[in-house]
Amino acid sequence: MRKPPDIEEIRAAHRRIRSVVHKTPVATSRSINAMVGAELFFKCEHLQKAGAFKFRGACNAVFSLSKKEASCGVVTHSSGNHAGALALAASYRGIPAYIVMPSTAPAVKVAAVKGYGGMITFCEPTLAARESTAAKVIQNIGALLIHPYNDYRIIAGQGTAALELMEEVRDLDFILAPVGGGGLLSGTAISAKALNPKIKVIGCEPQNADDAYRSKKAGTIIPAGNPQTIADGLRTSLGDKTFPIIRDFVDDIVLATEEEIISAMRIVFERMKMVVEPSSAVPLAALLSGSFTAPGRRIGILLSGGNVDFSAFFKSMMNGFHVQ
Amino acid sequence: MRKPPDIEEIRAAHRRIRSVVHKTPVATSRSINAMVGAELFFKCEHLQKAGAFKFRGACNAVFSLSKKEASCGVVTHSSGNHAGALALAASYRGIPAYIVMPSTAPAVKVAAVKGYGGMITFCEPTLAARESTAAKVIQNIGALLIHPYNDYRIIAGQGTAALELMEEVRDLDFILAPVGGGGLLSGTAISAKALNPKIKVIGCEPQNADDAYRSKKAGTIIPAGNPQTIADGLRTSLGDKTFPIIRDFVDDIVLATEEEIISAMRIVFERMKMVVEPSSAVPLAALLSGSFTAPGRRIGILLSGGNVDFSAFFKSMMNGFHVQ
Repeated sequence: MRKPPDIEEIRAAHRRIRSVVHKTPVATSRSINAMVGAELFFKCEHLQKAGAFKFRGACNAVFSLSKKEASCGVVTHSSGNHAGALALAASYRGIPAYIVMPSTAPAVKVAAVKGYGGMITFCEPTLAARESTAAKVIQNIGALLIHPYNDYRIIAGQGTAALELMEEVRDLDFILAPVGGGGLLSGTAISAKALNPKIKVIGCEPQNADDAYRSKKAGTIIPAGNPQTIADGLRTSLGDKTFPIIRDFVDDIVLATEEEIISAMRIVFERMKMVVEPSSAVPLAALLSGSFTAPGRRIGILLSGGNVDFSAFFKSMMNGFHVQ
Repeated sequence: MRKPPDIEEIRAAHRRIRSVVHKTPVATSRSINAMVGAELFFKCEHLQKAGAFKFRGACNAVFSLSKKEASCGVVTHSSGNHAGALALAASYRGIPAYIVMPSTAPAVKVAAVKGYGGMITFCEPTLAARESTAAKVIQNIGALLIHPYNDYRIIAGQGTAALELMEEVRDLDFILAPVGGGGLLSGTAISAKALNPKIKVIGCEPQNADDAYRSKKAGTIIPAGNPQTIADGLRTSLGDKTFPIIRDFVDDIVLATEEEIISAMRIVFERMKMVVEPSSAVPLAALLSGSFTAPGRRIGILLSGGNVDFSAFFKSMMNGFHVQ
């Protein structure tokens, strides 16, 4: 794919992956609706296979490869949800996935990637080491690099979550998605605007990692630096493939503080009996804090994932703000 | 209802309540299946309105009342899930619910009952005070007592959860439910045996509150005393209406230790991204510990509720065994 996907390509991605991905449920909560004064529809991607929406993009990328492209397997150097998602997607296709992880990666993440059949290469915990180690795997084995978000096949796959949500829940006025590297938000924006040109697409970002907010304002990519936020999935910067889509199709980006994110996680826990990771809680945090309001409107929210480190989760919920 | 409900009465209960209760989803987990070596189907009553299966029985009881019976409202002295469930059920019928609660009840439970429109009368934290206070409400106001489990209308309502599960998932070999007062287990047993006479119905109980286990062995009700278990919903004793059904229709009762219950809660949290209360985790605890095994079989599990005190939940999960 050499240009941004359109809705037909997102539909094609959906046909390609739908026998393997979960059609995740849409949850509602009367008590949370009452708190925010709007009608919310939560797309539960934390119940997706491998625990996050990332499995959609990874599957679409892996299943899109020609036999020749796929023959030597795939490689990535993400240590987050993309690593597990890619390993699992590759296992469905029956090809190897090489995952470059920093030697400091939490045991639980290493175990998850191994459990999905990923072949792990450890490296020093620097971006340079990760990139050079991945480059070696590419050179030595011929595996194909699958970027976690700056890839049109990934973007098309991520767009299938909003496609499912909007086919199930009609007449949404808004759709809110967290934004880190921008794969989910850009795919969501393409699906949403194609299915309903009147819908407003809102990116939701931690105030402590507001690079997408600033990039959209500036009209050019402003990298994230080294942001300190509990929302570990949202510390990355936009890419040259995700940014133009967000610039052109996303209506606004709103921010949430660390305290607001933790409070929103707790409300999802208490009221919805669901475990979401901090990144997932950012849209609800913006609604609860009033930094985004839409009284009486119908709002779709993408709950992006549920992969939380158990102890860190508890500590952050008990103590308030806690950077991992 | 003067005799135990049969499947037709449970079907009638289902017709009576189904426009108001959630048809809760059935969740599965490949990783938990792999751990226990069987195929599990979790009926998610923690996602029921008011956070527990109790809403089914409360609705059936409240909606079954004649106009005259309902005219002065309903009363109960449960401080657990039944209190919130009864208050919410009464609000749907538009009649008052009088809830007698001990003065020591946690603020979160008081707030829940108030939020559902219940009228709270506080009393000393003893069973005698609770019963005498409820008796006064009955005498002064004429409200009708709705017992949390020892009532055939309640039992019929609770049986609708297994009815929905077995209509959605065919050919279950076993169905597992926690047992406290026995309302859920007895209703489950009636539904399950009627729909599939070959199914085995297994009650699951904390080892520290094993009165149902001992009662079934002895052939007579042995009260619970004052059991110390984190599974606060299962500290009650069987009643004269629930016990004979459990004696006659339940195949076995299996036990789980406190550590096994906490471990099972944690696995539901980590693998299924769901928040269940300790009582809900007892069946999975029995499966994970091997105190109940059924290799390769299809097993239905009733996840009974998700109403956990946030801080107590975290503490228990972090510290291991913790009695509230």
